[in-house]
Amino acid sequence: VALPITFLSDYGYDDEFAGVCRAVIARIAPDATVIDLTHGIAPHAVHQGAVVLARALAYAPVGVHLAVVDPGVGSERRAVAVEAGDGRLLVGPDNGLLRPAVDRLGGVVRAVDVSATPVRLDPVAATFHGRDIFAPVAAHLANGARLEDLGEAFEPEGIHALEVASRVVAHAVAVDRFGNVALDLAESDLPAAGIEREERFAATAHGRRLEGTYARAFADVPEGEPLLYRDAADAMALAVNRGSAAERLALEPGAEVVLTPA
Amino acid sequence: VALPITFLSDYGYDDEFAGVCRAVIARIAPDATVIDLTHGIAPHAVHQGAVVLARALAYAPVGVHLAVVDPGVGSERRAVAVEAGDGRLLVGPDNGLLRPAVDRLGGVVRAVDVSATPVRLDPVAATFHGRDIFAPVAAHLANGARLEDLGEAFEPEGIHALEVASRVVAHAVAVDRFGNVALDLAESDLPAAGIEREERFAATAHGRRLEGTYARAFADVPEGEPLLYRDAADAMALAVNRGSAAERLALEPGAEVVLTPA
Amino acid sequence: VALPITFLSDYGYDDEFAGVCRAVIARIAPDATVIDLTHGIAPHAVHQGAVVLARALAYAPVGVHLAVVDPGVGSERRAVAVEAGDGRLLVGPDNGLLRPAVDRLGGVVRAVDVSATPVRLDPVAATFHGRDIFAPVAAHLANGARLEDLGEAFEPEGIHALEVASRVVAHAVAVDRFGNVALDLAESDLPAAGIEREERFAATAHGRRLEGTYARAFADVPEGEPLLYRDAADAMALAVNRGSAAERLALEPGAEVVLTPA
Repeated sequence: VALPITFLSDYGYDDEFAGVCRAVIARIAPDATVIDLTHGIAPHAVHQGAVVLARALAYAPVGVHLAVVDPGVGSERRAVAVEAGDGRLLVGPDNGLLRPAVDRLGGVVRAVDVSATPVRLDPVAATFHGRDIFAPVAAHLANGARLEDLGEAFEPEGIHALEVASRVVAHAVAVDRFGNVALDLAESDLPAAGIEREERFAATAHGRRLEGTYARAFADVPEGEPLLYRDAADAMALAVNRGSAAERLALEPGAEVVLTPA
Repeated sequence: VALPITFLSDYGYDDEFAGVCRAVIARIAPDATVIDLTHGIAPHAVHQGAVVLARALAYAPVGVHLAVVDPGVGSERRAVAVEAGDGRLLVGPDNGLLRPAVDRLGGVVRAVDVSATPVRLDPVAATFHGRDIFAPVAAHLANGARLEDLGEAFEPEGIHALEVASRVVAHAVAVDRFGNVALDLAESDLPAAGIEREERFAATAHGRRLEGTYARAFADVPEGEPLLYRDAADAMALAVNRGSAAERLALEPGAEVVLTPA
Repeated sequence: VALPITFLSDYGYDDEFAGVCRAVIARIAPDATVIDLTHGIAPHAVHQGAVVLARALAYAPVGVHLAVVDPGVGSERRAVAVEAGDGRLLVGPDNGLLRPAVDRLGGVVRAVDVSATPVRLDPVAATFHGRDIFAPVAAHLANGARLEDLGEAFEPEGIHALEVASRVVAHAVAVDRFGNVALDLAESDLPAAGIEREERFAATAHGRRLEGTYARAFADVPEGEPLLYRDAADAMALAVNRGSAAERLALEPGAEVVLTPA
């Protein structure tokens, strides 16, 4: 039986990119279940993709994890497949996208460069490695192929990292459709900044300021009240109950947000 | 073998919410087929979700039906799993979302409160019961678990209902991307209002007025002509052939539309 | 075992249309794997759907290929199922949508009119043949039903064609979310127009003009530079490296683009 494959990308839904990758997988590994985590990562937003991937994999079955947010496609950036400490297999561009996930999953145990993998679809399109390299590699791994048969081994430490943000100055990493804004900040970072549960906080961004309550849930604050809360992924997030924090602070993924006690 | 699971929500496609729920299901019930009905329900639009769910389930295989449109997540609203008269199992928040569907499916035969279900993912995030409560319950039901092992039984009549709209004053329940507007109105409601097939009608909303033909299909009216028709879900809908009724009347889901003969 | 089914449409993601078709398929052919190619074809854009379908099927497993972009639903246009020369089975409206794909797949070997197919869902909604005709036909084909049992045979040459665009005057067939614009133009058409690889070209549309380099990949031109390149589907495409060609030329699918040497 084939391993399940999760799939995350910035391909969006207007085009057939994600669908064609799934078609390629279905041709090579017809028995593999494919679970679309999301294809709604902002275009080229490697940092956002990395954060979403890392927190989603904690909930996914052990298997193959395909991720493609790849602004450097067609350049010399490496295409890789890696095995994490817990046995999961991750496939994608080596641009930092995979690193936060593998760091959470026990680190990189083995890594291969699949840029010239023998299972590629020839000719490889310079602009669509998802279809021609990453999807075939993921599908063959789901079928039980060994890493070393799909690419050239290299030192696991060679996998690229992402820049880590500072702790009091946070960044918006995701804005959902309700206008809630996830930050690159863990709850454990807040006490050091003097921000305490049930107390008031202030968030400033783009010169705008929002004051509210550091609460447990939306239901704990009145309608229209801003809140800071630990979201379902254990990241800190800004929201306005039945409103939009993103709108109030004009936030988009990547924007800097400074948190202080109010 | 596992039961199939249908899945409807207001999670949208930009975020990984629906994908993470699918990941949770795949981990617990790897053999269950998951059929996404839609994740495009407007945010927090319980009424729209209820109508879409009720009409979609008529076409779905008998199985487990997961639905999450849940503005009250984190409050005291009940999380439930219910068995309908025809054997289908519905899982979601007890805020009216499930009621029109179960009413069409033979009513509620058994109901359990799964708010503290033993199969929850601990700790339960205050803002993401889809992942931590509803998806695990749906997956275990697909695997054959019994309702009574997943929650506390309560009286079936206790399931919350939605408000029912009036008959001549209708509401837009869904606007599709073509600008067609589904109304909370059945064909059988129209004669009482003096609106007859093949005759002229008028629709007014926001002080704007649209006159057209009560027709069978788009092809029955010229380009640019408004029409009232029974849509594929047997709901009455407003459209403009190759145009947008939503734009002409500035309609969004929830808006009031008054129908009269023209 | 059932054949896999690919599914392409202009149903979008806001509504349950595609999900309900998948529900219908799951009820009839529970063992068939369904691969959504995309449901993001622009509403009623038959030409765009035809081009996307033709290039996607080259990557899909042999099976049943359901495609619904159907502005004439409810009129007298024929609903068809056809067998291509390579054994694939295509199902959809006979409005030109299927033709470029079957032409690439060895032409039409057999064709049946399924407008009154015995496997339809009764009553057939005048506006939703996807659910009531096409999905059931696709599902029964996946289960191994024979074409001749699902409809009335007709002469294969009777399948409708699309208009073919001129060669130097191209059209935008797809704009992706990065603002890249695919054209209805093959690389082999360019030399005749005096446009050579590595040389400068000019594109004009709506009275606007864009000059750039006919390159291999984004990485070959500096940031901000326009490029003409062969995309992953072997179609010529316009882009601006880290920018939007669509915005610069105000392009939408269907718009005319004139290409010349610069």
